[in-house]
Amino acid sequence: MPLNHQILLDNRPLGEAVASNFKLVSQPTPALQDGQVLVRHHYLSLDPYMRGRMNDTKSYTAPQPLGEVMLGGTVGEVAESRHPAFAVGDKVVGMGGWQDYSVVNASEPGALRKVDTSHIPLQAYLGAVGMPGVTAWYGLVKIIEPRAGDTLVVSAATGAVGSAFGALAKARGCRVVGIAGGPDKCAYAVNELGFDACIDYKQHLDAASLSKALKEACPSGIDGYFENVGGMVLDAVMTRMNAFGRIAVCGMIAGYNGAPLPMSYPALILVSRLKVQGFIVTEHLEVWPEALKELGMLVATGQLRPRESIAQGLAAAPEAFLGLLKGKNFGKQLVQLC
Amino acid sequence: MPLNHQILLDNRPLGEAVASNFKLVSQPTPALQDGQVLVRHHYLSLDPYMRGRMNDTKSYTAPQPLGEVMLGGTVGEVAESRHPAFAVGDKVVGMGGWQDYSVVNASEPGALRKVDTSHIPLQAYLGAVGMPGVTAWYGLVKIIEPRAGDTLVVSAATGAVGSAFGALAKARGCRVVGIAGGPDKCAYAVNELGFDACIDYKQHLDAASLSKALKEACPSGIDGYFENVGGMVLDAVMTRMNAFGRIAVCGMIAGYNGAPLPMSYPALILVSRLKVQGFIVTEHLEVWPEALKELGMLVATGQLRPRESIAQGLAAAPEAFLGLLKGKNFGKQLVQLC
Repeated sequence: MPLNHQILLDNRPLGEAVASNFKLVSQPTPALQDGQVLVRHHYLSLDPYMRGRMNDTKSYTAPQPLGEVMLGGTVGEVAESRHPAFAVGDKVVGMGGWQDYSVVNASEPGALRKVDTSHIPLQAYLGAVGMPGVTAWYGLVKIIEPRAGDTLVVSAATGAVGSAFGALAKARGCRVVGIAGGPDKCAYAVNELGFDACIDYKQHLDAASLSKALKEACPSGIDGYFENVGGMVLDAVMTRMNAFGRIAVCGMIAGYNGAPLPMSYPALILVSRLKVQGFIVTEHLEVWPEALKELGMLVATGQLRPRESIAQGLAAAPEAFLGLLKGKNFGKQLVQLC
Repeated sequence: MPLNHQILLDNRPLGEAVASNFKLVSQPTPALQDGQVLVRHHYLSLDPYMRGRMNDTKSYTAPQPLGEVMLGGTVGEVAESRHPAFAVGDKVVGMGGWQDYSVVNASEPGALRKVDTSHIPLQAYLGAVGMPGVTAWYGLVKIIEPRAGDTLVVSAATGAVGSAFGALAKARGCRVVGIAGGPDKCAYAVNELGFDACIDYKQHLDAASLSKALKEACPSGIDGYFENVGGMVLDAVMTRMNAFGRIAVCGMIAGYNGAPLPMSYPALILVSRLKVQGFIVTEHLEVWPEALKELGMLVATGQLRPRESIAQGLAAAPEAFLGLLKGKNFGKQLVQLC
């Protein structure tokens, strides 16, 4: 039985999340029962939604239970199998959590999926060809409903969702403007990800200043916005939305740490006849096959080459996660396990 | 030539609108040219959107020009005609403005419409069977998209839009809860308009208190909200919206007088996967025939009997309008002219 390292939620954040909210423990992996598979995790995905689950408040998912392994997406390979559809060595994606190994009841629908790594790197199934990619696809295709020539804006532009959004939007003939933190990320968005422009929000102290920068980057106004952050960035973008603009609300990371962040100018929803719509991609499983097909093609053909930030070893996960919440990652945040 | 009294916008409000923003003048009606019709106005409609046009700021319509007759909907009869489709005595609806008479180029599309008053009172074409009614219809049918059994909430429930909304929603098998100001309006909403419940917002000093009252009135949560006011009422309703709820934003009267009113909990758009959509009914002329047909039927059969507040004479219009902005009217606000 291999030894399994695990990270549990030990206590809930009071305001900002801190490393001591987590606890590292170890125990042997249990013996398998019929229908179960032991998966050795190669990569763990760290995502902003995890911060929301650390609070014990009403949200779209149940809170992360205290004393249990942190939930999270994983890719790896089958180490042992008592299920006929899975063989040792199969590459798989699942929700294995913050641990080196997971035992999966492989017959549960959606619990474990075999993936093809001949043209797509294994870890891409946690990013561009996984939940973040489908998140970008859903917000773009189903809420923003872009037309060629539209100007679209995405915040957290160099992250896993933002980079996929950029590639998907460019493929539809749109002008795509990113918002990101720092000159390196902005240069990367334009030079590597193919954004038409990228604005460094850290150069702007208030919504009025950011709004002015958006006016320059979006001379025809903004038709669609993919919202990952909330707060001042949302306020600024709303002032530049064209009539009948669409805002897909995927995340409001700026508000995770406590005090709710208001929207300063909700009257613009009326004045500009906006549609502002929130969504959770796991509630729209019907679109996943179509979305994953397009995303897999973009990655396999090199049209989408997302950057990754890779932390080494499970013990590094809490620090990497806290950094993600502050925008310290550059591209998709992963933890390489065993 | 009859003498025409007119009310002009003399100067723009600094904060709250006041009577001295308006100016009453008189002049003879001009001689008609070919294709023109002289309309004698029986009723002028007063509506909250007029306050927005008094500001010189970007909005969905051009500002009301200074020194010109205030824009507004009117019903009346043809007093003189040099257009073959209109005869003296025809009952007509149009945008005649704040004046006793208007000269209309009757060939302009939408400028003047003959109406049938055999089963529907003339002034209803300014309310339930006019723009306010169609506004309620569009927000309900096209944005909220109700299902039988849904719980719907509308603010300014006893106004022209709110009362039509109630009748249209009840006809679709929904539970309808109003929000209005004062016990008289609330009793009227339940006893006369057929609302299932009505909450007096004046009994609640903050969103938390109003939210608690909404929980009692909406034990299954809120599936759709028709927004006429903004501010604290919107904040409270958002805390009670069910997953996948729809909010039709028709007005934010609470913010007309200056400082923008923030939305306190925009993260609820994500948490509850809400759709929040603004609209202007005059941009959706394609729905008017269908909407007016249903609204006319509801009025003709007595299923919708909206109340009216009628001010007497053009000179009373400014005061009646300022009262409307403070919720002093009870039902559709009209001015009876000549």
